[in-house]
Amino acid sequence: MSAKVGVIMGSASDWEVMAAAAETLEAFGIPYEKRVVSAHRTPDLLVEYAKTARGRGIEVIIAGAGGAAHLPGMVASMTPLPVVGVPVKSRALNGLDSLLSIVQMPAGVPVATVAINGAKNAALIAVSILALSDGEVAARLDAFRTRQTADVLKAEL
Amino acid sequence: MSAKVGVIMGSASDWEVMAAAAETLEAFGIPYEKRVVSAHRTPDLLVEYAKTARGRGIEVIIAGAGGAAHLPGMVASMTPLPVVGVPVKSRALNGLDSLLSIVQMPAGVPVATVAINGAKNAALIAVSILALSDGEVAARLDAFRTRQTADVLKAEL
Amino acid sequence: MSAKVGVIMGSASDWEVMAAAAETLEAFGIPYEKRVVSAHRTPDLLVEYAKTARGRGIEVIIAGAGGAAHLPGMVASMTPLPVVGVPVKSRALNGLDSLLSIVQMPAGVPVATVAINGAKNAALIAVSILALSDGEVAARLDAFRTRQTADVLKAEL
Amino acid sequence: MSAKVGVIMGSASDWEVMAAAAETLEAFGIPYEKRVVSAHRTPDLLVEYAKTARGRGIEVIIAGAGGAAHLPGMVASMTPLPVVGVPVKSRALNGLDSLLSIVQMPAGVPVATVAINGAKNAALIAVSILALSDGEVAARLDAFRTRQTADVLKAEL
Amino acid sequence: MSAKVGVIMGSASDWEVMAAAAETLEAFGIPYEKRVVSAHRTPDLLVEYAKTARGRGIEVIIAGAGGAAHLPGMVASMTPLPVVGVPVKSRALNGLDSLLSIVQMPAGVPVATVAINGAKNAALIAVSILALSDGEVAARLDAFRTRQTADVLKAEL
Amino acid sequence: MSAKVGVIMGSASDWEVMAAAAETLEAFGIPYEKRVVSAHRTPDLLVEYAKTARGRGIEVIIAGAGGAAHLPGMVASMTPLPVVGVPVKSRALNGLDSLLSIVQMPAGVPVATVAINGAKNAALIAVSILALSDGEVAARLDAFRTRQTADVLKAEL
Amino acid sequence: MSAKVGVIMGSASDWEVMAAAAETLEAFGIPYEKRVVSAHRTPDLLVEYAKTARGRGIEVIIAGAGGAAHLPGMVASMTPLPVVGVPVKSRALNGLDSLLSIVQMPAGVPVATVAINGAKNAALIAVSILALSDGEVAARLDAFRTRQTADVLKAEL
Amino acid sequence: MSAKVGVIMGSASDWEVMAAAAETLEAFGIPYEKRVVSAHRTPDLLVEYAKTARGRGIEVIIAGAGGAAHLPGMVASMTPLPVVGVPVKSRALNGLDSLLSIVQMPAGVPVATVAINGAKNAALIAVSILALSDGEVAARLDAFRTRQTADVLKAEL
Repeated sequence: MSAKVGVIMGSASDWEVMAAAAETLEAFGIPYEKRVVSAHRTPDLLVEYAKTARGRGIEVIIAGAGGAAHLPGMVASMTPLPVVGVPVKSRALNGLDSLLSIVQMPAGVPVATVAINGAKNAALIAVSILALSDGEVAARLDAFRTRQTADVLKAEL
Repeated sequence: MSAKVGVIMGSASDWEVMAAAAETLEAFGIPYEKRVVSAHRTPDLLVEYAKTARGRGIEVIIAGAGGAAHLPGMVASMTPLPVVGVPVKSRALNGLDSLLSIVQMPAGVPVATVAINGAKNAALIAVSILALSDGEVAARLDAFRTRQTADVLKAEL
Repeated sequence: MSAKVGVIMGSASDWEVMAAAAETLEAFGIPYEKRVVSAHRTPDLLVEYAKTARGRGIEVIIAGAGGAAHLPGMVASMTPLPVVGVPVKSRALNGLDSLLSIVQMPAGVPVATVAINGAKNAALIAVSILALSDGEVAARLDAFRTRQTADVLKAEL
Repeated sequence: MSAKVGVIMGSASDWEVMAAAAETLEAFGIPYEKRVVSAHRTPDLLVEYAKTARGRGIEVIIAGAGGAAHLPGMVASMTPLPVVGVPVKSRALNGLDSLLSIVQMPAGVPVATVAINGAKNAALIAVSILALSDGEVAARLDAFRTRQTADVLKAEL
Repeated sequence: MSAKVGVIMGSASDWEVMAAAAETLEAFGIPYEKRVVSAHRTPDLLVEYAKTARGRGIEVIIAGAGGAAHLPGMVASMTPLPVVGVPVKSRALNGLDSLLSIVQMPAGVPVATVAINGAKNAALIAVSILALSDGEVAARLDAFRTRQTADVLKAEL
Repeated sequence: MSAKVGVIMGSASDWEVMAAAAETLEAFGIPYEKRVVSAHRTPDLLVEYAKTARGRGIEVIIAGAGGAAHLPGMVASMTPLPVVGVPVKSRALNGLDSLLSIVQMPAGVPVATVAINGAKNAALIAVSILALSDGEVAARLDAFRTRQTADVLKAEL
Repeated sequence: MSAKVGVIMGSASDWEVMAAAAETLEAFGIPYEKRVVSAHRTPDLLVEYAKTARGRGIEVIIAGAGGAAHLPGMVASMTPLPVVGVPVKSRALNGLDSLLSIVQMPAGVPVATVAINGAKNAALIAVSILALSDGEVAARLDAFRTRQTADVLKAEL
Repeated sequence: MSAKVGVIMGSASDWEVMAAAAETLEAFGIPYEKRVVSAHRTPDLLVEYAKTARGRGIEVIIAGAGGAAHLPGMVASMTPLPVVGVPVKSRALNGLDSLLSIVQMPAGVPVATVAINGAKNAALIAVSILALSDGEVAARLDAFRTRQTADVLKAEL
């Protein structure tokens, strides 16, 4: 089954964070693809990836990057698909630079931004989008949320 | 036609910012509803709004709030729908408090956050989501982006 | 004896910080209850907890949370009791997000906020409130403060 | 009737912000006193004020200050009464300095801090404390909250 | 004479800031070109501009942008020429977002960043680079600096 | 010989940082005294210390504190002596709270603030002040600076 | 009478802020000199000023600067005199850059830093230093502080 | 062959960061010199170094410093050569102080600033400048960038 979600990241070292997105998509049975696409070191791949994503059947793109994190915004500039941005925690500024670089997009080209290192939530946004037109995914999301609530309810201190 | 997008905000004074979301949805012909829902002053309405949104046919919720901005996250806690959060610029801290209050959600309950005062982009995220299953909206989004590009290309200094 | 102070927190992992509140209340002989109440993962419990607290005899609620910390403010929106908020230090932003999410409440619904990880002080605020109408607690608070002063006075470098 | 709440501030210019606390207390029929007490320019008055407050029947102290805002914390160091701190917006740093100077108190001496310029909420904290032992105040607080909710519910966009 | 410096900016509204770069280059007799190139709204133009700059004789590119300011970094990813980035002051965060988005580039693709709104200094960096191989420009730069020093020396208070 | 410099700190745990001030004063042969004086836990000692310092022959007070660091400013409010403040690095906010709490004093009551954890420099400010009226101290300061320069000059990479 | 305090600033436009230092020195009858000394535009003057200050009888130097504010620290590197730094509020970052550039000096070369725009307090530090060896100045400082206290005590709300 | 790039830093401890600049220059076959030049502890060396650099054949200066990082800006004030500044990560504030101290230069004297700890990129800016007049260096830069792209393209997750 062809990938519905593209998970990309600016560097292989971001995988440590972004793996949580992949794991979550897997848990929901969402076919996805993953790839290192560096806005700064592989700009041609960036262009190609962003421009061909819709045609290849991708419905949501999750892009993670740190520091001067341009990947999510640049992908968003070249595809009409929803793009979810994950600010990866950076070494010096703890991800504040990543967050501002991703979220403060100008009017006209949005990036749906999640918390610093929030890769799991990026996947959950993709899931909630796909659930709109896929009853099975919607049911799995409901079940996930019910389980999540139950887990907290039985927490003991 | 029943509303597909719910535009809510924590205070009537947020309308100055959030109107841009409504205008954008209108320009795309997306039926929407708008309402003041204060997380802190009308918590019962918040619960009711969030829990009934899906049943009423809403597909995406756009929630704007400033300061200790709890509205987007609390709505997201009570609906599986995608929730887009708009940090409204606050008086003392220029919206940094709004941004962090909205974007730094814990794993499990995401809010798709846009820039401070980024109400137009919130609407565009909703459009991009609806475009996935509505060819006409997709065509309008493509046209919007083409026009937007053309406008920049003819800018003169 | 029924609990007079409710100590709640957004996640079991916050107990590491919030235990100091419980220990302090115990040292003052204040009956308290403690519970994980996640604003985002158990919103129904949040509503129930907040709305029933006064009726169950609770006089002060201490709520700790980190990141987009909505628990204290949301509890405050549903109870007239004094709510003391403890910003729990977060992983990426060191609790600055927690602090702003808790303290920057809009006019009308206050949260009495203490320092990042300031759970002990949250308990002391509860103690100072209860001391207003309980001479014994007041005496214990005076004794605590006297001892605290004495401890500093005998510090040697 | 003797004052139950003391409203103090570091400078007469803080009155512009702190008046909201006084107005709120008045609206609730809470007797209060107000005074300029500068931690840095009238330290003796600070000591006297803080040490005599309980004896004079004061039950809650509301202290507002800006910049290196030491007034609330120093008052708290000399009285066992609950002290509510109001960070007044400062000229250069917009009150971030005021906020951190007030909220980041060390373990042992708490200040219940509200939002930058949050004088109204400081008063509401005092009201919620007094309501614990005064049924009439409690009833007024409930009424205030009901009205506040109603006002939001009838807001139109 | 063909342009040696390219002055680009993300939006026509940045011209208010970036004009200072153009004026400075003119004062030094450096041929330049200027153009709106939006990373997000005209990504194809961005690619074309960056990839053809060296071939067209451009030696330094000055790129100004605000908010999630991706233009300088993305140009730098597609040209080996020195790229000077100008963080344009943004509405909500005063240019802190612009600055971090431009300066925090990953190892491998640098942007020579100047102060927020530092367009004049961006031009002076270009001048100092061109001066390395052009004695006349070097002489003008020396003269400019001498005059600048003299102006300060005769300042009166 | 009676102490000319008073080195005080808000907590015994600050000694780890403040010891550098003591060592520097010793190296310059300046008689000093050291003591824990907590603004919040020993306010009476604070008053007594500050008010008697000049009479006891102290000429400069060095005060270190962290978090809501009120010690330097409160001492300055009760003595006309020069007060040097050392912001001690705090756990959550890395000393930014300490720095702002100390340096942002209102007009009328200054604190001469040094870098976060800058206890050595606080001592050097005291030395430079004492050197104004003590030729021997002045000579030692000159020698210290000469040695310091020489140490850098012989550094090898 | 020859100047005892040197008041310098990086730009003539800083005079708006620094005039308060001059006025305060005048009010105390302290002879002073004032001058624009730009670290970046008149480095030779900086060197000359700093190196000759002690020889000319200057006892304290007050240096104000904004943005990348290097003047106070560079003067301190070339004179053993106490140097008081005034961070001038900057346009984009409100003086946070000025403050950090001045206060975060490395061990070995201190700058006694005051609040953003705190020129009056810089003068008061100079006064407190001169008061150590000049009984008349000490008396005037005491009188100033007494008056200042009295002014606050008679403030009415 | 005489050095074309000067690599200087404020302290020998900065070498841990700045070595990456040296290694990069070596990899490109660019002759360079390296030296500790402390703005604050060796101001005379700073003056001499900056003023003689151009005469000795240096074409670009790379200067690294942390905290109140004045070295790059002060060098830039005394040479017309392009100066690249490297903000070295500082202990308390993670290099935010270093960054602002370096990048926020006033109009007239620019420093080309790179990311916190971005020494490698500082060298790459120097390389890109030298490549303008040296075809061999240009070829090596192209090859470096091609390799860098290839390395990312073959990254596997």
